[in-house]
Amino acid sequence: MSVVPDGLIQSLEDVATRLRIDSIRATTAAGSGHPTSCASAADLVAATFFAAMRFDPDHPRAVTSDRFVLSKGHAAPVLYAAWAEVGLVKRDELTTLRQLDSDLEGHPTPRLPFVDVATGSLGQGLGVGMGLALGARLAGADARTFVLLGDGETAEGSVWEAAETAAHHHVENLIAIVDVNALGQSGPTMLGHDVRAYQRRFAAFGWRAQIIDGHDMAQIVAALRRARRARGAPSAVIARTVKGKGIEGVEGLEGWHGKPLPNDAAEKAIAVLERRLHHLPPPPIARPRSSRPATTPPPAANVPDVPGGEVATREAYGTALVRVGARDPRVVALDGDVKNSTYAERFLQAFPDRFVEAFIAEQNMVSVAAGLAAQGRVPFASSFACFLSRAADQLRMAGISRSNLKLCGSHAGVSIGEDGPSQMALEDLAIFRAVPEAVVFYPADGVSTDACVQLAAAHTGIVYIRTTRMKTPAVYPADETFTVGGSKTLRASDGDRLTIVAAGITLHEALAAHADLAAAGIPVRVIDLYCVKPVDAAALLAAARATGNTLLTVEDHYREGGLGDAVLEAVADAGVITHRLAVREIPRSGPPRKLLERYGIGRGAIVTEVRRIVGARS
Amino acid sequence: MSVVPDGLIQSLEDVATRLRIDSIRATTAAGSGHPTSCASAADLVAATFFAAMRFDPDHPRAVTSDRFVLSKGHAAPVLYAAWAEVGLVKRDELTTLRQLDSDLEGHPTPRLPFVDVATGSLGQGLGVGMGLALGARLAGADARTFVLLGDGETAEGSVWEAAETAAHHHVENLIAIVDVNALGQSGPTMLGHDVRAYQRRFAAFGWRAQIIDGHDMAQIVAALRRARRARGAPSAVIARTVKGKGIEGVEGLEGWHGKPLPNDAAEKAIAVLERRLHHLPPPPIARPRSSRPATTPPPAANVPDVPGGEVATREAYGTALVRVGARDPRVVALDGDVKNSTYAERFLQAFPDRFVEAFIAEQNMVSVAAGLAAQGRVPFASSFACFLSRAADQLRMAGISRSNLKLCGSHAGVSIGEDGPSQMALEDLAIFRAVPEAVVFYPADGVSTDACVQLAAAHTGIVYIRTTRMKTPAVYPADETFTVGGSKTLRASDGDRLTIVAAGITLHEALAAHADLAAAGIPVRVIDLYCVKPVDAAALLAAARATGNTLLTVEDHYREGGLGDAVLEAVADAGVITHRLAVREIPRSGPPRKLLERYGIGRGAIVTEVRRIVGARS
Repeated sequence: MSVVPDGLIQSLEDVATRLRIDSIRATTAAGSGHPTSCASAADLVAATFFAAMRFDPDHPRAVTSDRFVLSKGHAAPVLYAAWAEVGLVKRDELTTLRQLDSDLEGHPTPRLPFVDVATGSLGQGLGVGMGLALGARLAGADARTFVLLGDGETAEGSVWEAAETAAHHHVENLIAIVDVNALGQSGPTMLGHDVRAYQRRFAAFGWRAQIIDGHDMAQIVAALRRARRARGAPSAVIARTVKGKGIEGVEGLEGWHGKPLPNDAAEKAIAVLERRLHHLPPPPIARPRSSRPATTPPPAANVPDVPGGEVATREAYGTALVRVGARDPRVVALDGDVKNSTYAERFLQAFPDRFVEAFIAEQNMVSVAAGLAAQGRVPFASSFACFLSRAADQLRMAGISRSNLKLCGSHAGVSIGEDGPSQMALEDLAIFRAVPEAVVFYPADGVSTDACVQLAAAHTGIVYIRTTRMKTPAVYPADETFTVGGSKTLRASDGDRLTIVAAGITLHEALAAHADLAAAGIPVRVIDLYCVKPVDAAALLAAARATGNTLLTVEDHYREGGLGDAVLEAVADAGVITHRLAVREIPRSGPPRKLLERYGIGRGAIVTEVRRIVGARS
Repeated sequence: MSVVPDGLIQSLEDVATRLRIDSIRATTAAGSGHPTSCASAADLVAATFFAAMRFDPDHPRAVTSDRFVLSKGHAAPVLYAAWAEVGLVKRDELTTLRQLDSDLEGHPTPRLPFVDVATGSLGQGLGVGMGLALGARLAGADARTFVLLGDGETAEGSVWEAAETAAHHHVENLIAIVDVNALGQSGPTMLGHDVRAYQRRFAAFGWRAQIIDGHDMAQIVAALRRARRARGAPSAVIARTVKGKGIEGVEGLEGWHGKPLPNDAAEKAIAVLERRLHHLPPPPIARPRSSRPATTPPPAANVPDVPGGEVATREAYGTALVRVGARDPRVVALDGDVKNSTYAERFLQAFPDRFVEAFIAEQNMVSVAAGLAAQGRVPFASSFACFLSRAADQLRMAGISRSNLKLCGSHAGVSIGEDGPSQMALEDLAIFRAVPEAVVFYPADGVSTDACVQLAAAHTGIVYIRTTRMKTPAVYPADETFTVGGSKTLRASDGDRLTIVAAGITLHEALAAHADLAAAGIPVRVIDLYCVKPVDAAALLAAARATGNTLLTVEDHYREGGLGDAVLEAVADAGVITHRLAVREIPRSGPPRKLLERYGIGRGAIVTEVRRIVGARS
């Protein structure tokens, strides 16, 4: 066991003391925030930054730089103070904490150059850290990711999803530091100061796990360095700490979560802390040993053709993923143990090194993808669309992070058939439309699916692609072009009585209904709204104006939040009359075609509704 | 250790063999389904129903009856076959599996009298089981809950949320049975047949954990009976099994997940199984030892007054919860370690026996609530609204289950201020509106919050109540009445130029804007849309017709899926011109009032938008 020199210890103790002072000062200035959560972690943060991490302060997001993820995002002030010690934040800016237009927000966001992802929804940092660590490994970089967790947040199952999969994939460059201060927001944590229980849990999940006193700098440094050297498995450092440590009058007390000190108490506490300073500068920052690793060209693969003909869009997704992966070495794919259903297995077969099996743990799949994105990768994560809702909070946070994530949800809607409602995504469009800046695609055939995948890879930001279980006929020739925010008018004539707007499976129903209606002398327009967000407002409005100011939306989704709402958003202030067909009740198991009619979104239902609308008008 | 008689063993083996035969027959008839997942579990299910559980087959949902939750819902056919053995399903109905209008759906739903909650989204059964077990304990019933999990689904973090909290709360009447068949859908599970690893994990999470051969009936019975007797902690039975066990030609093979046998293979496999029968009837069903326990009257509590005056709606929620809990002994409350922020702590103080601290594990909080609801309780679960998105998939499944759940999300929108975007729910209305049959309330003052809580308790089904962090003035007198699907027109005059529709925090901004506009000679109507779903279409349409066919919605939510979309849904087919103010970008930390204006939903922004609309029209 290496001995840590006294000079380093005292220097680190000074860093920790300054982190406490800065955290008190910033939160008192802001009038809100979590100084006691900063104080329990200050020694751990000081040692991590100045005695364990190797990073380039000029390029904190370089793949060769060790990363630090503050999973307990409410301790943001201690993070900002640490980067002030490094020199990336000006010390006098620290007191702009939580002010409008200060990037030092209440919880960290990637508006700051040293923050990889937004945190503040607890339990998500370890999965992101796993993604960052995998990203470094993929790039051949000798870099670690350190994740600081609160003890209370280990109650989140997502932590254990990250733990089990990181161990399974031998992510040895991932280090979890658990700040066991025993106090949650509203009371003691479940395990209190039972650090052995935390150790048993991490060990049972396949991790190396050390217990330390989180306020003994020599122990902290030794443990972090051991963890940094560890091979074969990820490492956890379980640190027994005291909430509010070093802050006179609040140390170890309940009732101080998320409360700044009043001015006088802050000054008094700071004076006590200042007397503890050895007045040493921070230790020098350790730089990465190697420069940026060479990126390897993508392995040769047989690039399949654009998927044409009759094909399920989910299968077309798998083919398209191989096509995009062959061209772009940044592309990686992730699966939640349904790769044979989503067809992500085709990417695994072509590029096994760029595939992450995330098992049945969708929250972690999305967090790992966010971490990979923060390493410059372009992750495509797929599962049944309904199971992506498991990760709604991770997607929400990815939205705030502006992560460059691509998600594919297969088996959307009642058209999956016999498996029944638990497997039918009928709210996924609502969830993804509500992710800020997200692009939402819902292609109807192989060619458009391929285009959506290519567009997704080229677009910076979150993109969701919704696919269908059953085979559907080709709609487009292989050379058709598509755009983010586009639509296609597939049927149009001068006398059209209204415009049907559909996408995915219901587009085929709409085309069939169009034929039936044409035969009956009722011409209608049909638009393929393959991009549900951003929505092609101009095309929708023009079509409405040309067809009796009337639209009819048809979607294999609940009425709330989906394609119909997207269309309304585009035309609501123009007074367009919009009728809607959508799933309006909890569906049952049954044959797909029967379900489409039963729930009022099939060919027959569309014909009936158009006749009703046209009849009422004439 | 008790010895299990040979006669019982042979009888149970016959049950298990029939379960396998029925599972093969049903899935082959359906042409889809998961016979191999049924086969690995058949012995476990047979023993659970006929040698471990005590239940009343005429009242499977009685609080004195042991419950069985099939967390691995894709093994539905073995569940249906078991209830056929009990007599609650006719054997010849088993082959209607997955047909439209058969209640024997692809995955179990509570359309069936013996299914407590829908399963099929993996990893949710243990939390529901914990809720069922807690419900029995609350009622003083000596009843157990048995939960059958697949091994692959233990990758879901929600399983470990249930594990840790069940141990913490000493839910000794909860028994998990893990069917370790080592094969997932698309490949081997992470742990394969390493049953000791499962044992270590459950033990580390505070459970008693036994390892058995899941196809040795004597071992199974002994283990289940030990688990049934265990005290002080929940029990896990880790069963080593073989996927497809007993089905000739597929036993233990990869590539057979979710695939029915072809007709000839099915007949052959059934013939082999039939030769194994001892031709014994099932063992008699063990009945509960006691009759229905007496319900205890609610403890006396000081019933607070209706919260009036200036009050935060989150605080009014806490008061209202005590009021409803004092009248209705069925009411229980659950918290995710934010009870001091949501004010659920007031219920804890008044009724500690009816309060469940679910810690920072929102998925499990919702699953436990669903289990409690299935025991006849009326659970109110609360957290920050943004963190309820963590449980979006559990809410989706609760929707399918038609669970009688009440959720309260506090700290909605940018109006929370300095904590920043990670703590701001701006998509919660989209998520809850897309839950089928859910009621969504968004009250603006103490009186209406109280009314929403009372209405929620009286309404059967999912109800979501959105509350606000900051204090807001009173809008209503204490005796005002509210309804599910109602709205209130708060400002109206004959010359109104348009109608502003708002709720919660933006209602106060709209009322302030109304005053400013009135002073400027621009009369407008103001509607409080306190019930966002179902929406008061008649009132909205009438207001639009009376005010220039024009509405303006204002919401502290992203533009997608919230109040604006709800209004559009109501008036879209009437050609009403609807303008919308909503949050359109990722917000920052800052003072609440400044954020309301910065993101275009405050008093000033409303005045500006009304002037623009009115100016453009005149």
